[in-house]
Amino acid sequence: MTDLYQLTMAQAYWKSGRGEKEAVFQMFFRRHPFDGGFTIACGLHSLIEMLVEATFDDSDLAYLASLPGRDGQPLFEPDFLATLRDFRLVCDIDAIPEGTIVFPFEPLVRVTGPLVQAQLLETIILNIINFQTLIATKAARICLAAQGEPVIEFGLRRAQGPDGGLSASRAAYVGGCAATSNVLAGKVYGIPVRGTHAHSWVMSFGDELEAFRTYAAAMPNNCVFLVDTYDTLEGVRHAIEVGRWLREQGHEMIGIRLDSGDLAYLSIEARKMLDAAGFPDASIVASNDLDETIINSLKQQGACINVWGVGTKLVTGYDQPTLGGVYKLTALRDRGDDSWRYCIKLSEQSIKISTPGIHQVRRYSVDGELIGDAIYDLPSPPASGCVIIDPLDPTRRKRIPAEATYEDLLVPVFRRGECVYGMPSLEAVRQRAQSGLARLAPGLKRFVNPHIYPVGLEQSLYDLKMRLILQARNGGH
Amino acid sequence: MTDLYQLTMAQAYWKSGRGEKEAVFQMFFRRHPFDGGFTIACGLHSLIEMLVEATFDDSDLAYLASLPGRDGQPLFEPDFLATLRDFRLVCDIDAIPEGTIVFPFEPLVRVTGPLVQAQLLETIILNIINFQTLIATKAARICLAAQGEPVIEFGLRRAQGPDGGLSASRAAYVGGCAATSNVLAGKVYGIPVRGTHAHSWVMSFGDELEAFRTYAAAMPNNCVFLVDTYDTLEGVRHAIEVGRWLREQGHEMIGIRLDSGDLAYLSIEARKMLDAAGFPDASIVASNDLDETIINSLKQQGACINVWGVGTKLVTGYDQPTLGGVYKLTALRDRGDDSWRYCIKLSEQSIKISTPGIHQVRRYSVDGELIGDAIYDLPSPPASGCVIIDPLDPTRRKRIPAEATYEDLLVPVFRRGECVYGMPSLEAVRQRAQSGLARLAPGLKRFVNPHIYPVGLEQSLYDLKMRLILQARNGGH
Repeated sequence: MTDLYQLTMAQAYWKSGRGEKEAVFQMFFRRHPFDGGFTIACGLHSLIEMLVEATFDDSDLAYLASLPGRDGQPLFEPDFLATLRDFRLVCDIDAIPEGTIVFPFEPLVRVTGPLVQAQLLETIILNIINFQTLIATKAARICLAAQGEPVIEFGLRRAQGPDGGLSASRAAYVGGCAATSNVLAGKVYGIPVRGTHAHSWVMSFGDELEAFRTYAAAMPNNCVFLVDTYDTLEGVRHAIEVGRWLREQGHEMIGIRLDSGDLAYLSIEARKMLDAAGFPDASIVASNDLDETIINSLKQQGACINVWGVGTKLVTGYDQPTLGGVYKLTALRDRGDDSWRYCIKLSEQSIKISTPGIHQVRRYSVDGELIGDAIYDLPSPPASGCVIIDPLDPTRRKRIPAEATYEDLLVPVFRRGECVYGMPSLEAVRQRAQSGLARLAPGLKRFVNPHIYPVGLEQSLYDLKMRLILQARNGGH
Repeated sequence: MTDLYQLTMAQAYWKSGRGEKEAVFQMFFRRHPFDGGFTIACGLHSLIEMLVEATFDDSDLAYLASLPGRDGQPLFEPDFLATLRDFRLVCDIDAIPEGTIVFPFEPLVRVTGPLVQAQLLETIILNIINFQTLIATKAARICLAAQGEPVIEFGLRRAQGPDGGLSASRAAYVGGCAATSNVLAGKVYGIPVRGTHAHSWVMSFGDELEAFRTYAAAMPNNCVFLVDTYDTLEGVRHAIEVGRWLREQGHEMIGIRLDSGDLAYLSIEARKMLDAAGFPDASIVASNDLDETIINSLKQQGACINVWGVGTKLVTGYDQPTLGGVYKLTALRDRGDDSWRYCIKLSEQSIKISTPGIHQVRRYSVDGELIGDAIYDLPSPPASGCVIIDPLDPTRRKRIPAEATYEDLLVPVFRRGECVYGMPSLEAVRQRAQSGLARLAPGLKRFVNPHIYPVGLEQSLYDLKMRLILQARNGGH
C-alpha cells in the first residue's frame, strides 16, 4: 500500500547510487483541524503494527514487474525488484506518543534512515496518522461540548469503509468517547460497546407498546427504548409503562433514546415525565446528526440529555474530513558523514516553506501549567531562558522563563528497524489525552477563535531556516 | 463488523419467536451528494465479497458471550449465540448494478429474508454502499469539470484509513478517473497506476537540474518533472533541458507537473515554453487541492493543463464526506403468508417518512433519452401511460408517454443466500457509468442548481403511502 512515485523514486535512488544516503523525514501538519486550538496525536499503534509487517511478497513483485513505462518497456528493473524482495525495515523512527496534545509544525513522526526506505514510508505514515489524529481531535471537541457526559460513537454505517469505521472507533475512544456501537472495535480494541434497538424493531410490531414489551422481556438488562418511531411523547409514555413492568421483574430500564425532532423540547418534556413516573435515574440518550456545535446549542437550551450518540459527523470529521499532514525531507548526509546537509522546500506561500533540521519538541510548564513548546534542532537543544519564534510570524516571540520545567515529546519507536517502544494500553493513551486536555488553558479549547498556544522555533533553528531560505532564493540549494 | 444493536435486536427477535418472519428492507438515500443532480451507484462488488464470507467464528462468539448487560449478567444467551455459529446467508438480495445513475428514494439494495438476518445486514450494506457511491459520484463530477481530460486519483495519503484509500481508488475509477497513484489498487483491481517523483527527490540533490538529470537517466520512460520545488518557471527550463537530453537518448519526456502557485498563469507560461522548445506533446499535469470547482475555474481562465491530479477532495468527498443512505424496513409477513404487511416510519420531517412496499425502479426513455423513473411496488407494476408523483411534493407529477420504452433497474444478486449475479468487470462498470452520464441531460450535470430529474412513486404506491401515513397518525400502525 503505497503511491507509485515512492517506488519509481526508490528505483531512481537505487540506480543512481543515492539510496543509501541517510535521510531525515518529518511528518507534521500546518493547521489545527476544525479551526480549533489543539490537536490530539493518534494512530501510532496502527502504524507500528503495519510497519512491522511491511514486506513485498511474490505477487507484489510480479505485479510491479508487469507495469509498463511510456515506451511500453517495463517500468521497473528486475535487479531493483530483487532489492524489494529483501526489504526489511532498518530505519530509526521517533514519534510523539498517542494521546499527546500537539500543535502545528511539531513533528508527530520523524524517520531517519536510508533515503530510499525513509521515502517509501511516506504514504503509510500519512494515511494512518492523518486520519486517526483527525478523528481523535474531533472526538475530544465533541466530548468537551458534552461537558463530561458520556458520548457514544455510532458512526460505522456512515464511515469511509470498514476500517475507516474501525480505526475511527479507536481514535474516537482515545479522544474521549465512552463507548462505540461497533462490535468489531469492541472485540479488537476492548472498547465498551453499546446498542439496543432501531426503528425497525418498533415497525415490525403492530404497535409500539407491544414492541417495547417484547424487547424488555427478551433483553431485560439492556433496555433503552427508542421512542420516536411514531409520536415521541407517546413513546415516552410507552417506555414508562414498560419500565414499570421491568421494575416488577427486578430490572431497571436504562433509559430512552430520542433520534429526531426538537431534541431540546422533547428531552425536557421526557425528563419531566420520567421523573414524575419515578424514573429519575433513567437516561435520556439523544442522536441525530450531532456534533460539538449542536451539542453546545442543546446545552444552552437546557436540554435534559445525559448521553450523546454521535455518528457521521464524528467518524468522518465531517466539516474537515482530512488533517492535511505532510512528510518532508529535512536533512541528508552521505553514509558515514558526521554532519548533515539541511534541506528546505520553498513556496510562494510562507506556510508551505519547510523547516530544515532534525527536530525535537520541548514542552515547557510552570507550576504544572503548559506555557509553550520549542521546536529545536537535536544538535542544538534550547538553553535555559531561551526565546521561541513563531515560524510564520517572527514578531511573535516568547521567552521561556528559566524556572520552567520541560519534557521532550518525541520518543524512540524503532531503532535500526526494531520496535523499541513499549506500546501503552489503549486506556493509558485515552488517559494521556484526558490529562493533556485538562492541562490546556480554557481559551485553547473553545470552538470560536480559540487562543493560539505558543509554539516556536528555538532561536538558532529559526536563524538557520532564514539563512537557508535566502540562500535557496539566490539559487543555491 | 456490525453495530451492537443489530445483535441485541437479533436476540430479541429470536427470543420472541419473531426472527423467522419474512421482512423486506431497502437501502436508499434522500438527497444527491454535493448538491448535485445525479449519483452513481457503487460498492456492490465489495458488498458481495463481504456477504459471501460473513460468518461468526469462535472468537467472535466468545467475545459476545463476554459482554455484560446493565445488571452485570451476560447480554447474550448461549442458545442465541449457538444460532449465530450456524449463521449462513439465506436472504434474497436485489440491487441496482454498479455504475448506474441513480436518484433519491430509489432502492439501491433490497433485502428479503428472515427478519433477524435481514436486519443484521444493515450496517455492512450502509458502510460499503454509502462510501463508494459517494466517491464514484464525486469522481464523475471532477471528470465532468475536466471535460474529457484525464483525471488521476492521488488521494491515498489523505484517505480515511488504508481501505478508505483502496475502495476510494476503485470508486474513483468507476466514476471516470483514468488512473490512481495507489499501487495496491492497481494490483487488486487492475486500475492503471501513475507516479514519478516528489519534491523530496529534488531536495535530496544539490540543485534541481542535477535532480532531473539523475531521474531521467534512471527512469527514462517515466519522466514527469515536478518543477515547483524552488522556482517554477526555472524548473520548466530545467525540465526542457533534460527533455532534450532524453530525446537524444531516444526517449520522450511525458511532461511536467505543477503542484503550487497560480496554476492558470504558470501552466500558460509553461505551455509556451514547452511549445517553443519543441515539446508540444509534453503534458502539463496539475495538482494542489483540486476539485470540480477549481478545475472549472482554471478552465475558464484558459489554463493549459492536460492532466489533473486530484487527491484529498476526491477520496474523502471533502465537501460532503458521507452519502447519508439509510436502510428501512418496508414490508413484513409471517412465514407462509401470501400477503405482506407494509411498514411505515413517521417523522415530523416529510423527507424522513419511509415509503412502504417492495420496490422496483422502472427507468423510461423515449428515443434513447431518459425521461423519468417510476418507483413501484412489485405486485403493482406501472400501467402504460402511468403517472409518477414526486414523493416530497404531490403537485409535481409527470405522465409517462405510452410509447416510452423502459428497463427495470434492480436485478437479482442473491437468491436464498446464493450469489446469482454475474459480476461485471470493473471496465464494464466504468463504461456503464460513462454511458449513463452521456445519456443525462446537461442540466442535470451542472454544478450550480442542477435540474431535477423526474423520479416519482407510481400512482397506486403513492396512494398506499398516503393511506398508511394517515392510518399511523391516527394511532394504528
